[in-house]
Amino acid sequence: MGDFVFNLKHVLVVSLAMNMCLIWKISYDEETVANKWSSWEQKLGLCFNGEKHKDHDTILATTSSAAAAPFVRENTAVINLDHGDPTMYENFWKQKGKETTVVTSSWQHISYFSDIKNICWFLERGLMSAITRLHKVVGNAVTEGRHIVVGTGSSQLYQAALYALSPHNASEPINVVSAAPFYSSYPLMTDYLKSGLHKWAGDAKEFNKQEPYIELVTSPNNPDGSTRQDVVKRDKGILIHDLAYYWPQYTPILSPADYDIMLFTVSKSTGHAGSRIGWALVKDREIARKMTTFIEINTIGVSKDSQIRAAKILEAISDSCDHANEKDAETFFDYSYKLMAERWKEIREAVSKTELFSLPDFQQETCSFSGRTFGQLPAFAWLKCEGDVDDCEGFLRKHKILTRGGKHFGASMKYVRVSMLSREKEFKLLTQRLPAIVS
Amino acid sequence: MGDFVFNLKHVLVVSLAMNMCLIWKISYDEETVANKWSSWEQKLGLCFNGEKHKDHDTILATTSSAAAAPFVRENTAVINLDHGDPTMYENFWKQKGKETTVVTSSWQHISYFSDIKNICWFLERGLMSAITRLHKVVGNAVTEGRHIVVGTGSSQLYQAALYALSPHNASEPINVVSAAPFYSSYPLMTDYLKSGLHKWAGDAKEFNKQEPYIELVTSPNNPDGSTRQDVVKRDKGILIHDLAYYWPQYTPILSPADYDIMLFTVSKSTGHAGSRIGWALVKDREIARKMTTFIEINTIGVSKDSQIRAAKILEAISDSCDHANEKDAETFFDYSYKLMAERWKEIREAVSKTELFSLPDFQQETCSFSGRTFGQLPAFAWLKCEGDVDDCEGFLRKHKILTRGGKHFGASMKYVRVSMLSREKEFKLLTQRLPAIVS
Repeated sequence: MGDFVFNLKHVLVVSLAMNMCLIWKISYDEETVANKWSSWEQKLGLCFNGEKHKDHDTILATTSSAAAAPFVRENTAVINLDHGDPTMYENFWKQKGKETTVVTSSWQHISYFSDIKNICWFLERGLMSAITRLHKVVGNAVTEGRHIVVGTGSSQLYQAALYALSPHNASEPINVVSAAPFYSSYPLMTDYLKSGLHKWAGDAKEFNKQEPYIELVTSPNNPDGSTRQDVVKRDKGILIHDLAYYWPQYTPILSPADYDIMLFTVSKSTGHAGSRIGWALVKDREIARKMTTFIEINTIGVSKDSQIRAAKILEAISDSCDHANEKDAETFFDYSYKLMAERWKEIREAVSKTELFSLPDFQQETCSFSGRTFGQLPAFAWLKCEGDVDDCEGFLRKHKILTRGGKHFGASMKYVRVSMLSREKEFKLLTQRLPAIVS
Repeated sequence: MGDFVFNLKHVLVVSLAMNMCLIWKISYDEETVANKWSSWEQKLGLCFNGEKHKDHDTILATTSSAAAAPFVRENTAVINLDHGDPTMYENFWKQKGKETTVVTSSWQHISYFSDIKNICWFLERGLMSAITRLHKVVGNAVTEGRHIVVGTGSSQLYQAALYALSPHNASEPINVVSAAPFYSSYPLMTDYLKSGLHKWAGDAKEFNKQEPYIELVTSPNNPDGSTRQDVVKRDKGILIHDLAYYWPQYTPILSPADYDIMLFTVSKSTGHAGSRIGWALVKDREIARKMTTFIEINTIGVSKDSQIRAAKILEAISDSCDHANEKDAETFFDYSYKLMAERWKEIREAVSKTELFSLPDFQQETCSFSGRTFGQLPAFAWLKCEGDVDDCEGFLRKHKILTRGGKHFGASMKYVRVSMLSREKEFKLLTQRLPAIVS
C-alpha cells in the first residue's frame, strides 16, 4: 500500500523538477546553437537535420513522454516542425500484421551483391519488381525502358546524379540550379565537399550564364507544394526531377511522369524514413552506370535489410490497391490522402482565424489514380507571416514553434516551412497555437 | 513417366547450350570491360567492385548454379577472388536460429531519429551497447570516453573522417597518405569528387612535403595482412586507424587499440557485408559531431533495419563468448578462427608445391582473447609471382583466377591480392588450380 501514497507535496516536487529540466535544456540549446555551426555551414544554410534544431527536439520528446503527467501544460511545449519526419503514417502501419512484417535470419543476404547481371548490382530483385509494380498501380511514373538505381535515401541519389551528370574533365565545376524556393539541402549537398565537379549556382530563375548547367525540378515542390517544370530551358541544360512527393496523398496524379532522371523515396511515399531507401528511374544506361559507380564508391551499395523491408511494404500497398474493392480494409493511399486532407482543412481553419498568417492556394484537379478532385495537399505548409513580421521563423520560435525559415530555401524570411507530417499530438498543438498568437 | 525421359541427345543439347552461353558471356565481358571505364576512373585505379570484375562473376555464378550439371568441368570455371565478399561465414550463420533472427513490423523505427540526445542522433541505442559490449568481450579496442558514429559501412565513415579532419578554410586540400601497399579504394574515395578539402598524396613512406597531412593506418593491413603503425610521424599529422581486420579470426589480439579515430565494420567482423554497417570510435567530441554532419548530408543517417540486425548479431556473438564454456556450441570466433587457419594451411600447401608463387610469412604471437599462439591469418592473400612473371594479375587471369593486381595498391605488379573469404567451392578450386599452373 505504501507504493501508492500520493499527495500534493509529491506533485509539487515533480512539477518543479520538470520545470528545472526545461529551463536547463533551453539555455543549453541556445549555447550549443551559438557554438555548433561553423561559418561555412551557416553560409550554405542549415542542412536537413541540423543539430541546431535537433537539440530542441529533446524538449518535445520530454513533453511527449510526459503525457502521463498532466501537470505540464501543453502550451509550454516546444513543437518541432522544422524537419519532415514522416511519423504521421505510423498509426496506419500499426494496424498491419504479417503481410508487412519482415523476418530475417542471420545467414540471409550476407553478400555485397544482389544481382550481378544488373547495372545496379546491389539492387535486390524483389525491390526492383515492387517499385515497378507500384508505379504501374499508381500511374505516377513511366518505368518501361528505365534502369532502376537504389540509393541510401534520395539524398544519396541526388549526389549520385550530380556525379553522373557532371563532366569529369571540365576546367570548371558545372552550375547546379533550382527555382527558388528550393529544397534547403540542395546547396549543402552540392557544395559540402567543395567538389571540382559541380557547384551550387542558386535560383534557376536568375541563372543567366551562358554555361552548362544542371537544373533540379522538384514537383510537387519542397517547400511550397507547387507543381513545377524546368525554367532555364536552354541548350546544354540537364534536368534532374525530384518526385519525392508525386504520390496521390499529396497531389492529384495527372499522368505518368516521363523524364530522364526521376528520384523517389520511401521516406515520403510510405513514411519509412528510418529505412533510408530511395530509387532513381534513369533512361540512359550510361548515366545509370555512373550513378551506380558513385554509390559503389560512397557506400559500396545499399542496405539489403532495408531493401527487403521496403519491397515488402511496397508490395503490400500494391496488393491492397489491386484488391481495394474486395476488402473492407482501407488502402494506404486512402488513409494517407484522408489524413492529409483533414490536416490541410485544420491548418487552413487555424490560419483563417488570424490576420497574421497566410497559406498558398492550389488549383483543383482530378487524380487519375483515385478519381478524386482536389488541390495539392503538400507535405509542408509554406506559411507566410503577413504584416510587419519580417522574420517569420524567429517570430514563431518565440511562440515555441520551430520551423525552417525562408532564407534556407532561397526565399524571403517572411516565409517558413512547417512540416505537416508529424505525429497527431504535435499537429494538434500547432493548430491550437497558431490562431492564439497575438502580434 | 514421360517427364523422366532422358537420353544422350538431351545431354548434348544442354551441354551445347551452356557452352554457347559461356562463349557469349566472355565476349560480352571483354567488350564491356573495354568500354565501361572512363580514363579518369582508370587513372585512380579500380574501385572495390568495379564492373570490370563484376561481370566476370556471372561466369562463376553460371558455373556454380550449374552444379547439378557435371558436364561442365570445374577447370573451366572462372574464379573471382578479386573482391573481399565475406560469404565464408554463411554456413556458420545457417546453424543459428531465433537468437539471431530479426522480426520487424512495418510500424517500427519509421523516424529519421534514433536517439536525439546522442551526438550521432541516428545511432540506435541497441547497436551502441552491442558495439561497446563486443569490444569489451574481445578486448580489441578501448570504448571508454569514445563517441560512436555509425556509418553505411566503413567506407562512408572513412569519407566522414576526411570531411571532419580536413580544414574547411584552407587554400589547398589537405594531403591524404597511407603506406603502400594500401587499400585500393582509398585513392578513389579521397578523389572521386575532386574535393577541395582533401587530395590523395600516395605512399606515406614517400611523403616528404612540409604540409599538413592525414595518414591512414590500416592494421592488420589490406592487402598484405601486416601489422601497421603510422610512418610519417611529423607535426601537423592526423591519423585515422582502419581496424576492419583487428578481430581474433585474422590476427592475435595483443591489447585494446587506443587511437583517436578507429574504424570497424560488420562486413569483415561478422561477415554481414550486405547490411552495410560500420562504426567509428572517436575520442574528440567535435570530430564525432562533424563526422555525424557528413553522414547527415550524405545519406541523412544510416538504415535502422540494418542497425537493429547488426545489434542482434553482435549481441549473440558476445553472449556465446560469455558462455563459451557452458555450452557445446562453437562460438563465432572459434569457428571463424579455425576456418581461416585451415584455409591458410591449405593455400600455403598449394603454393609450396610450385616455384611460381610465394606468400608473406608472419610472426607468431599470443592472442589475449583466445589464448592461442598464431601468426596473422589475413582476409586476403598477398600473393607474389616469382621468376619472370611481371604481371601477376594478368598471368592468373589466363588461368581463370581473377585477383586484384599490385598496382591498384600502390605496389609492384608482381603481387596480387586474393580474397580468402569466398565460399568453400571457390576456395577449393583456387587451391587445386594454383599448384597445377605451369609457367
